[in-house]
Amino acid sequence: MIEEKNDEVQYDEAFLRMLLDEENIESFREHFLVLHPYDQAQFYEEVGPDIRQIIYRYLSPQEMAIIFETTEIEDDEYKTYLDEMDPSYGAAMFGFMYTDNAVDILNELDTEQRENYLEMMDEETVDEINELLGYEEYTAGAIMTTEYVSVVESATVREAMRVLRQEAQTAETIYYIFVVDQAHRLLGVMSLRELIVAEGDLYIRDIMSERVVSVKVTDDQENVANLIKDYDLLAIPVVNENRELQGIITVDDIIDVIEEEAEDDYSKLAGIADMDDNDAGPLRAAGKRLPWLIILLFLGMLTSGLMGIFEATLDKVALLATFIPLISGTSGNSGTQALAVAVRGIATGDIGGKSKFRLIVRELSTGLIMGIVSGAIVVGIIFFWKGTLMIGLLVGAAICCSIIVATLAGSFIPILMHKLGVDPAVASGPFITTLNDVTSIIIYLGLATTFISRIL
Amino acid sequence: MIEEKNDEVQYDEAFLRMLLDEENIESFREHFLVLHPYDQAQFYEEVGPDIRQIIYRYLSPQEMAIIFETTEIEDDEYKTYLDEMDPSYGAAMFGFMYTDNAVDILNELDTEQRENYLEMMDEETVDEINELLGYEEYTAGAIMTTEYVSVVESATVREAMRVLRQEAQTAETIYYIFVVDQAHRLLGVMSLRELIVAEGDLYIRDIMSERVVSVKVTDDQENVANLIKDYDLLAIPVVNENRELQGIITVDDIIDVIEEEAEDDYSKLAGIADMDDNDAGPLRAAGKRLPWLIILLFLGMLTSGLMGIFEATLDKVALLATFIPLISGTSGNSGTQALAVAVRGIATGDIGGKSKFRLIVRELSTGLIMGIVSGAIVVGIIFFWKGTLMIGLLVGAAICCSIIVATLAGSFIPILMHKLGVDPAVASGPFITTLNDVTSIIIYLGLATTFISRIL
Repeated sequence: MIEEKNDEVQYDEAFLRMLLDEENIESFREHFLVLHPYDQAQFYEEVGPDIRQIIYRYLSPQEMAIIFETTEIEDDEYKTYLDEMDPSYGAAMFGFMYTDNAVDILNELDTEQRENYLEMMDEETVDEINELLGYEEYTAGAIMTTEYVSVVESATVREAMRVLRQEAQTAETIYYIFVVDQAHRLLGVMSLRELIVAEGDLYIRDIMSERVVSVKVTDDQENVANLIKDYDLLAIPVVNENRELQGIITVDDIIDVIEEEAEDDYSKLAGIADMDDNDAGPLRAAGKRLPWLIILLFLGMLTSGLMGIFEATLDKVALLATFIPLISGTSGNSGTQALAVAVRGIATGDIGGKSKFRLIVRELSTGLIMGIVSGAIVVGIIFFWKGTLMIGLLVGAAICCSIIVATLAGSFIPILMHKLGVDPAVASGPFITTLNDVTSIIIYLGLATTFISRIL
Repeated sequence: MIEEKNDEVQYDEAFLRMLLDEENIESFREHFLVLHPYDQAQFYEEVGPDIRQIIYRYLSPQEMAIIFETTEIEDDEYKTYLDEMDPSYGAAMFGFMYTDNAVDILNELDTEQRENYLEMMDEETVDEINELLGYEEYTAGAIMTTEYVSVVESATVREAMRVLRQEAQTAETIYYIFVVDQAHRLLGVMSLRELIVAEGDLYIRDIMSERVVSVKVTDDQENVANLIKDYDLLAIPVVNENRELQGIITVDDIIDVIEEEAEDDYSKLAGIADMDDNDAGPLRAAGKRLPWLIILLFLGMLTSGLMGIFEATLDKVALLATFIPLISGTSGNSGTQALAVAVRGIATGDIGGKSKFRLIVRELSTGLIMGIVSGAIVVGIIFFWKGTLMIGLLVGAAICCSIIVATLAGSFIPILMHKLGVDPAVASGPFITTLNDVTSIIIYLGLATTFISRIL
């Protein structure tokens, strides 16, 4: 039976719940364990703590391990789920996970809880986990897995196939075989595709590819993602400073990284702390958005305060006030455009070291073009609409200057932050917009105050 | 020799250029063809048309095919590159590409040019290409490849391995073997991992997995991406309405889709037509940003016009004008937040059919909470800063109402667009922001005009 899948649920939730209700363990296991782990995990998350208690009784820690590492539980909720389980059941479950997944989850727990689990696990697993726990978050070391297939260069194709069959059960991927020397230094790579068409008695060192793309344990995960994407890899080996093979990172984990990083940039452009709140209640959603909103509120107050300086000018020509939203809006829009280009350029590695200066010059010219075009349009509209050339020229000049400044600020600030080692996406859209509000209004009302005698 | 790769260039460009200068064909081929196709493509794009002429002479169409399908040429530039080649060389090159890549590129040419190439190619390839050309853009059919490995259910493991070895050279992936019946209907799937550990004389039908996740040719590519991501697949089979296997989509193509879609949402949130302009000159960059900027300029003029209605009020209390950027900014910010959550929710499929109403209710409550909190803060600040409770209450009430309206608009508009079959991301950030500018100013100045007697 083929299922054509789409985003809808792929399993019969009511039926599975019924089997659990009836305590029909045999039938539940039969129908549940054939499901794809993703579907098992969806069911597991859906049913609530009471029914999960039954699941823990019906499934072995090994069966539970696959489900638990596949769930899309929010980072801060792992503790809640783990607290439902018997600690020894949980510890056994961690032992059956791929090391990278176990480490990801253990990283979300507090030190005491983590230590408790580690005490109950066997020494070898603990060593592996502790090694990975030592790497900084968002580095290759932190996201790599240690379950990979490696052979020494002196092996034959036949021997390599034998290793591969043995490791097929536990390795995270068997489609790349990494070739090492006696000291476990990475020498090359072979794909399973190449291996299965090769003669059995050839030596691996004679047929392996020596041009293996690898990363260091300390490399940033975004860098790893760019390499896997550019080189269309299914996995990438991770080495330490002595070129000893430490682990691999597979493409399915990298897809999550790519999504995470894109989501992160997107959230920050929108001024939200973090995006995953479609299922959250309004209180939680408001909690994620209010911090930014309130910071920006204070920045906005600053704008109001600055405008107070020009109250006398506004008092004389009330018409001036009606163009404030136009000017601040346009400056905000052009700043956000420049910001987005710069942030994505940095994220995808398109903006290299030497091209930063060129980008600034490019943005300055772009701002100049956009400023002149937009300014001219505004002068025209206001002249024909209100019949006043002076105010048209004033607003046009303000818009032209604002666009140039906003475009420059939008590209310069993220590049500067990147240089300083700060995530450029932190210079979020609303922040840049509010900043540009202030500058554009100062430009506008400053010009207006200077030339007030000609306007009146 | 191991190379540790990062975003820097991985090959010796100057050396390769020198070999071409010296017309040292042997040595160039020796050093160039060992490079990863991605690096070959980078070099090819870097050198400019004159040197590319030499490359075309030194490389066969087959060698060129891999380079050409790996390049990151902009869609509208394919024509330029192809015009450099002899048409028959180009046609031969298309013949050696994976069908999906050939189709992607042919799709960017005008009909006449495409027909020219097709006329020069052999019939079988033309048939395959024409089939794929028939699918609508952004569907599974349009991005699938026809180079996959399939076996009939009645085959044994040993026979399947033989098929696999034969297809290993041309198939885009050999890591999934798709199992079909005599009518080529999809019955199941086996991974190469499962195949190599299985006994040679078992029948495929007895060991294949029947729970194969598949998509239809007409499915949206975003849907395909979500499935591959959720189920951690390396490839997904594509079937027609009779469940006949038509092609597969591999994970490396899906990574590009995921990036494209995220980039697309991001660009639209920032109000840019399309993002890839880090290498473009200022004229081109301005060309991509100006259209939105000018549309928004006209919308902004509308705001100015509407404010004109309240000129009398502004004339009486100039202080009122100083809070306009604060109110419109805050409303814009909260609207953008709601928009971003809704757009990403729709993109990732988190927002299903039934939960749309719930989302609106959730956003209404979220807006209410944020509006009351922000409003209260503003009343407090203005009271202590300016010593006026009335204006504080006025601005606070306006901010509260504006946040509620903006949050609702930010979530309702993309959902409505999605319902109407329009890409919700088109309701871009700046558009929502400008819309919310208008409503927030009407709310604010409307309230001010109503209560003007109490303010004075």
